[in-house]
Amino acid sequence: MGKAQLDCEHTLAMAVREASTEPCPPLLARALDYAVFPGGARVRPRLSLAVALANGNSEPRLAAAAASAIELLHCASLVHDDLPCFDDAIERRGKPSVHAAFGERIAVLAGDALIVAAFQQLSAVGSRISHPVRLAAVTAIVARGVGGPLGICAGQAWECEPRVDLEHYHRSKTGALFVAATCSGAAAAGVEPEPWQELGDSIGEAYQVADDIQDAVADPEVIGKPTGIDVALDRPSAVRELGLDGAVKRLERCIEKGLDSIPPCKGRDLLREVVQQQSNRFFPQGVKHSAA
Amino acid sequence: MGKAQLDCEHTLAMAVREASTEPCPPLLARALDYAVFPGGARVRPRLSLAVALANGNSEPRLAAAAASAIELLHCASLVHDDLPCFDDAIERRGKPSVHAAFGERIAVLAGDALIVAAFQQLSAVGSRISHPVRLAAVTAIVARGVGGPLGICAGQAWECEPRVDLEHYHRSKTGALFVAATCSGAAAAGVEPEPWQELGDSIGEAYQVADDIQDAVADPEVIGKPTGIDVALDRPSAVRELGLDGAVKRLERCIEKGLDSIPPCKGRDLLREVVQQQSNRFFPQGVKHSAA
Repeated sequence: MGKAQLDCEHTLAMAVREASTEPCPPLLARALDYAVFPGGARVRPRLSLAVALANGNSEPRLAAAAASAIELLHCASLVHDDLPCFDDAIERRGKPSVHAAFGERIAVLAGDALIVAAFQQLSAVGSRISHPVRLAAVTAIVARGVGGPLGICAGQAWECEPRVDLEHYHRSKTGALFVAATCSGAAAAGVEPEPWQELGDSIGEAYQVADDIQDAVADPEVIGKPTGIDVALDRPSAVRELGLDGAVKRLERCIEKGLDSIPPCKGRDLLREVVQQQSNRFFPQGVKHSAA
Repeated sequence: MGKAQLDCEHTLAMAVREASTEPCPPLLARALDYAVFPGGARVRPRLSLAVALANGNSEPRLAAAAASAIELLHCASLVHDDLPCFDDAIERRGKPSVHAAFGERIAVLAGDALIVAAFQQLSAVGSRISHPVRLAAVTAIVARGVGGPLGICAGQAWECEPRVDLEHYHRSKTGALFVAATCSGAAAAGVEPEPWQELGDSIGEAYQVADDIQDAVADPEVIGKPTGIDVALDRPSAVRELGLDGAVKRLERCIEKGLDSIPPCKGRDLLREVVQQQSNRFFPQGVKHSAA
């Protein structure tokens, strides 16, 4: 599984270009590109493609469309999460957030248009794949990871409730899109998605814990966004709950659990390596962990 | 073509229930239902279903999913258009707008979740139709009506530009979803969608002109939302451009053009009747027109 095989920049660029081509209003067109490029670690699409590849990747176009749809939806959620009514974050990935750069109205619309672009992308491969029946299954998996009742919109909506159901909050806000990543990779390759749920769940939880650790200890200059938000907004966090060492231990356990859950498949060993590699990036600089 | 055949309330209710079921955060769940029910005139889904029926409706489940997806997307756009950063409208359909009733954060998320629900709905029929290849075509048509470069998101984004391209503004903001309605109805029934574009275009333009007339002359109490917005926000409007009589004449011409464009099909006469009936509702009370 080479580095190039896990790369979705080209598919992402095509999707953004299609959505922002003439006669798209210029500000919206620029905001769409700005929200997606340059990207972050692209953890979710890499995970999705890695699962498809480990299972033979018999519909590479569908797998690529699923992976980049998931990343477009992730980017959309960042744009909307940064809005003044939510985190009011003025920085993201080391540059002004979309609403800081283009205004609130364009940020709302860019998020909307990215959600639509994700599904547009998926539908576009319909006529170019050998197993069209897989498209509906993959689309349903991706949609489940984003909307209600258990997708990232629902996760974010828990922040608006007087009482938060912590398990559903984390599962939906972070885990759901990771589950969509592993399960859509499996479904695109034509294998039963359900056994791949636990890998997504565990890596999603690991990612959430890593995010909490980062918010507590990382240098804002290094990670390109403000830190200390969890304490400032009084949000639940693994570090606040378990202390730093406890949170690092939980992160290690989540990754191990994910690795152990990988179902038998042709590329199991390589997939384990990829997951391990990607997960090592979850540990902020300066935080010691046993598997590094 | 009976009244019941053009009704999509049941499909809409199923879609909203699926998105808002346990464990959806309660506020988001209530907001999703609130944004869709009770509905407005449901002009777009009726038009979509009418076109599918006029063409034999050989995939009724797909036609119903397309019609209600279009209405969900329309409802999503109303929720986001009413936000403080856009129209800042506190009333819609005779009750507080979603952000007025549930707060801005839930309004952003409800709009997002409705967009996702639309595509989720479409993907859900994938395993239950005889012509799965039509699903991708219908989904692509619906997505094109909403995202960039020519969908309703793009239309709304023209309001953020220093110079507005008026033709693209109206085409995208209103026409695009009407075109999606007629073309998705045709594609769901297995006929070439392209010849159905002009019907959507013309009825979409008629609707836009009717909206301008309503904004200029209707009683806010009767229509359940504020009026006089176009002048207050200095927005282009057919009434401001042509005067009331000129705008009414243009509305009549648009409807006529739409009726004349209907391609040959089995249910052409009935479809003409439905379009005429629906269009008669475009004339606000007290405004005289020749076809009433």
